[in-house]
Amino acid sequence: MSPVPQPTSLAEEVVSALRAVVGAGSAALHEPSFGGNEWLYVKECLDSSFVSSVGKFVDRFESELASYTGAKHVVAVVNGTAALHIALKMAGVRIDDEVLIPALTFVATANAVSYCGATPHLVDSEESTLGMDAAKLRAHLVSQTEQRAGLCVNRATGRIIRAMVPMHAFGHPVDLDGLLAVAKDFNITMVEDAAESLGSYYRGRHTGTFGLFGTLSFNGNKTITTGGGGAILTNDPELARMARHLTTTAKVPHRWEFVHDEVGYNYRMPNINAALGCAQLEQIDGFLNSKRTLFERYRNAFAAVPGVKMLKEPSDCHSNYWLQALLLEESIAEQRDDILAATNDAGLMTRPAWALMSCLAPFRQCPSMSLEGAESLARRLINLPSSAFLSNRKANPP
Amino acid sequence: MSPVPQPTSLAEEVVSALRAVVGAGSAALHEPSFGGNEWLYVKECLDSSFVSSVGKFVDRFESELASYTGAKHVVAVVNGTAALHIALKMAGVRIDDEVLIPALTFVATANAVSYCGATPHLVDSEESTLGMDAAKLRAHLVSQTEQRAGLCVNRATGRIIRAMVPMHAFGHPVDLDGLLAVAKDFNITMVEDAAESLGSYYRGRHTGTFGLFGTLSFNGNKTITTGGGGAILTNDPELARMARHLTTTAKVPHRWEFVHDEVGYNYRMPNINAALGCAQLEQIDGFLNSKRTLFERYRNAFAAVPGVKMLKEPSDCHSNYWLQALLLEESIAEQRDDILAATNDAGLMTRPAWALMSCLAPFRQCPSMSLEGAESLARRLINLPSSAFLSNRKANPP
Repeated sequence: MSPVPQPTSLAEEVVSALRAVVGAGSAALHEPSFGGNEWLYVKECLDSSFVSSVGKFVDRFESELASYTGAKHVVAVVNGTAALHIALKMAGVRIDDEVLIPALTFVATANAVSYCGATPHLVDSEESTLGMDAAKLRAHLVSQTEQRAGLCVNRATGRIIRAMVPMHAFGHPVDLDGLLAVAKDFNITMVEDAAESLGSYYRGRHTGTFGLFGTLSFNGNKTITTGGGGAILTNDPELARMARHLTTTAKVPHRWEFVHDEVGYNYRMPNINAALGCAQLEQIDGFLNSKRTLFERYRNAFAAVPGVKMLKEPSDCHSNYWLQALLLEESIAEQRDDILAATNDAGLMTRPAWALMSCLAPFRQCPSMSLEGAESLARRLINLPSSAFLSNRKANPP
Repeated sequence: MSPVPQPTSLAEEVVSALRAVVGAGSAALHEPSFGGNEWLYVKECLDSSFVSSVGKFVDRFESELASYTGAKHVVAVVNGTAALHIALKMAGVRIDDEVLIPALTFVATANAVSYCGATPHLVDSEESTLGMDAAKLRAHLVSQTEQRAGLCVNRATGRIIRAMVPMHAFGHPVDLDGLLAVAKDFNITMVEDAAESLGSYYRGRHTGTFGLFGTLSFNGNKTITTGGGGAILTNDPELARMARHLTTTAKVPHRWEFVHDEVGYNYRMPNINAALGCAQLEQIDGFLNSKRTLFERYRNAFAAVPGVKMLKEPSDCHSNYWLQALLLEESIAEQRDDILAATNDAGLMTRPAWALMSCLAPFRQCPSMSLEGAESLARRLINLPSSAFLSNRKANPP
């Protein structure tokens, strides 16, 4: 007598679908690959003895990032948070200002606003991009703000809304046309948090090059890594000069004198980290192709699993697919934690979206619009193992 | 007929004395040496793919720094400025506080105070240590402050003087006994800026372990380097835990959730930089011996030059001789810039002390005691080429 087939849980189906793509064994959420000139360049850097914030790899990394993204100027810094801090400061964000940020983001976006003494003002997300909902933001600003002397003022708090920081979540470009129109109509400066979107394009143009500034991250979990690192992008030569000055302790160039003309920061990227970055950037096309292949393989594997779908790039956009994301239907959202537990128990690292900024103690009291979209996404998103090399792993037979 | 001997200028004599020690060719102010396991460890780090803020070299570097300095806990961070920022924040420095710092210091000491929203309060230096003058500070506090509810309040500004940050300039330990007594008597918390003094001891105990916190720097120009890096030292396990939390975006540990319970910082040292640090720290005894030898050789070479002397370690102290310093007599201080020009023209990199904080635009209005000592030192100090390997260079015949 053959055994009665047991009903399979959704969590088990998700584990099976993942196994069909990534094969046996464990899989981290995102690991880098060092199969290029990493060792060569790092050794060259050590041999030169220039390992710190002066050196040719920093110049080269900046120049190659400019070529790659199309930004006219790039300033390499210690991490994406530092990049955002300086970009916001240079965008004029001051104590007691408000800055529009998505509720659905990594905490660095909100922290950088706090470092300027300003307050995040939380914006809802749309499902197609995960990013700021331009139509909803416009309606919110119409009803809640007024223009005073060419500035957008939150009527409830009396504070100036100085900047907006759209973030391209998991690498998917936000609705930049919609948000740029809001920024223009309400006199709000845009700084793009492109920490997750190196290699992502909106209507053919690289993310991070639409705002006054864009910022990148090269943390160990990103598409390319420098260990720790980030960059400020801008098309304005004077702003680039100021960013370089501010991130280099605001030291006035002189043959021997140590004079600093404002409160500056020790934020420049060390040369040894830039050496790693140069080698990584050479391989980015391969990484991006692999991540796109991985997305297709996940999409095929999950096609037969009811109630879930893989999040795909928005129309007219090219996404880097930095973190692969599975979206559950609302009706099965309550099974999210079972899926997280089953997958992590199986050695397949998954995680939910970040806790919304509106749920974190330091930002709970921040001004906010209603966040139905972000709240729904936060209940339903699951990030899957996303390392580029997973697309080549020998998978289990289907 | 033999030519009439030309009178030799002081600047020429200084160049000759330098040449007698460092030989022909150029000499930078301070370059690192990578003659140990740097390649091995960095390669091991790359091979492991853990290059970012998680990894065994970070743990190992922290543990070995703790052994070396005698601090019970060490938290490795991106640089010395970040270390100081977090140490001051955890020492309770808040908006509108004042913090005592030496006028004669690198700008990072003052910047870190500013990041907390506090104001530097400038302290004079004594010639024997270059550091804060404890007797003069005590007299200043007696006349200018009063105790209110167990706090030291500046009567002129009404602000709380929350902390003091003695800095061990060029590696020479300050008068810690004197300053600790002032800190105790006036209810002021001490945070030691030991950025320049890894390997320096005050009465047999490592600098940076006397205050509530101490901070180190591993910038490319320091005794040992990690490219960019720093560390927070403390003997208090709970403060160490908090420092680790704050520097890791204040993320609450969880298998998959991203919850952050306060405004945190992205300040942890990447693993690849820590790998370099582990290799460098293994060689520190050799570096320190070489730097001491270099000091002796400079002292001999300058013994015959009138009006100048090499700055030596304070009594009861063991200095790392990080930056060698020549001190001019006041009567010839006006020749300092001629000496700087002649030596730099000769490819021998020298520099004066930092511009005093009281001379920098962002700190010109800060509260201050009279600064005769620091002003005199700033007129008369010249740092000489100080790389450890210079002690082994083949020098010119005397």
